Amino acid sequence: MKIILIGGQGTIGRKVAAALLPKHEVIIAGRNSGDLRVDITSETSIEKMFQELKTADACICTAGTGYYGDFATMRQHHLTTGIQGKLLGQVNLVLIGKDYLSEGGSFTLTSGIAAEHPAKNGTSVAMINGAVNSFVLGASQELKKDQRINVISPGLVADSQERYGALFPGYNLVPMEKVVNAYLLSVEGAVNGKIIKAYA
Amino acid sequence: MKIILIGGQGTIGRKVAAALLPKHEVIIAGRNSGDLRVDITSETSIEKMFQELKTADACICTAGTGYYGDFATMRQHHLTTGIQGKLLGQVNLVLIGKDYLSEGGSFTLTSGIAAEHPAKNGTSVAMINGAVNSFVLGASQELKKDQRINVISPGLVADSQERYGALFPGYNLVPMEKVVNAYLLSVEGAVNGKIIKAYA
Repeated sequence: MKIILIGGQGTIGRKVAAALLPKHEVIIAGRNSGDLRVDITSETSIEKMFQELKTADACICTAGTGYYGDFATMRQHHLTTGIQGKLLGQVNLVLIGKDYLSEGGSFTLTSGIAAEHPAKNGTSVAMINGAVNSFVLGASQELKKDQRINVISPGLVADSQERYGALFPGYNLVPMEKVVNAYLLSVEGAVNGKIIKAYA
Repeated sequence: MKIILIGGQGTIGRKVAAALLPKHEVIIAGRNSGDLRVDITSETSIEKMFQELKTADACICTAGTGYYGDFATMRQHHLTTGIQGKLLGQVNLVLIGKDYLSEGGSFTLTSGIAAEHPAKNGTSVAMINGAVNSFVLGASQELKKDQRINVISPGLVADSQERYGALFPGYNLVPMEKVVNAYLLSVEGAVNGKIIKAYA
């Protein structure tokens, strides 16, 4: 398969890329690095990426972040990064990318455990993840050309413990293999419209 | 209780108001009608509403809508109304309103069955509803002063069959009493952080 992986330089993205590389052509797209440049907060940039790509059999997104911070002082402007990036960025990858994706191709988006089990200070991220999950349920019914779409909802992955562990007290670490397998299941399997929860 | 009800002129809001009126002081806020005017797409307007209100023991929102339409041609701009209104409007009611709400006060937001079971053409609304649901899970952990928050997720309510039934083929009608009860449970009960699903 020809696979476009947006966010392929991130903690999860790098491991997903490594798992796909032996069997597939993997094109990494990122804001500041990779084979192609894309800013997922921009519809124009996404359209340009797909024009350069011409087509793909799978589109995976592991990019996008959100605001962690004190709820008492949280205001709408804190939510903008998450809405423009992890939410609308991923939505736009589908709305625009579906016309470039091959027949039978698949989208694999990324949400996170916060949709169901928000951590303290993580209400903004919870909101974004819940939105991505429900978007995928809808989109899976609408895609044509036998295209599929799933979303991986990772827990706190072991490789991120040092960087993010302090934000998730009491969250069980998920082995990276389990998270990577979730992406493989979506890309190489036949599942459609699934929220694949990669946490215990 | 002193209750502020945003969207109290809508199909559900009118019935919720009628159920609360015998026991409570109900103040209706709406964009074009009601006791107070509020445009929930504006943080300034929400702040002004709460300043006029001074305080409340419960804040209920039954306002907000989203885009229904062809997925193939859907683009980001179609999502703006839902994001600014039903999503960020409700989020801002909480982020701003929590400082005005009394000790032990409650927020009751509204999502909908699409978060879990999107109808055809309803992917945008699914996304918004999923976001509101997960926001409430997070916010319920963060509110201070014993404040509570829940979200009602109504199915296709019987009273809306004529107006919206065609959008929801095969969806069972939910009696309005069941939906109204969900709001009463949130406002007068002790539940917190619940997605109250008012559908079979």
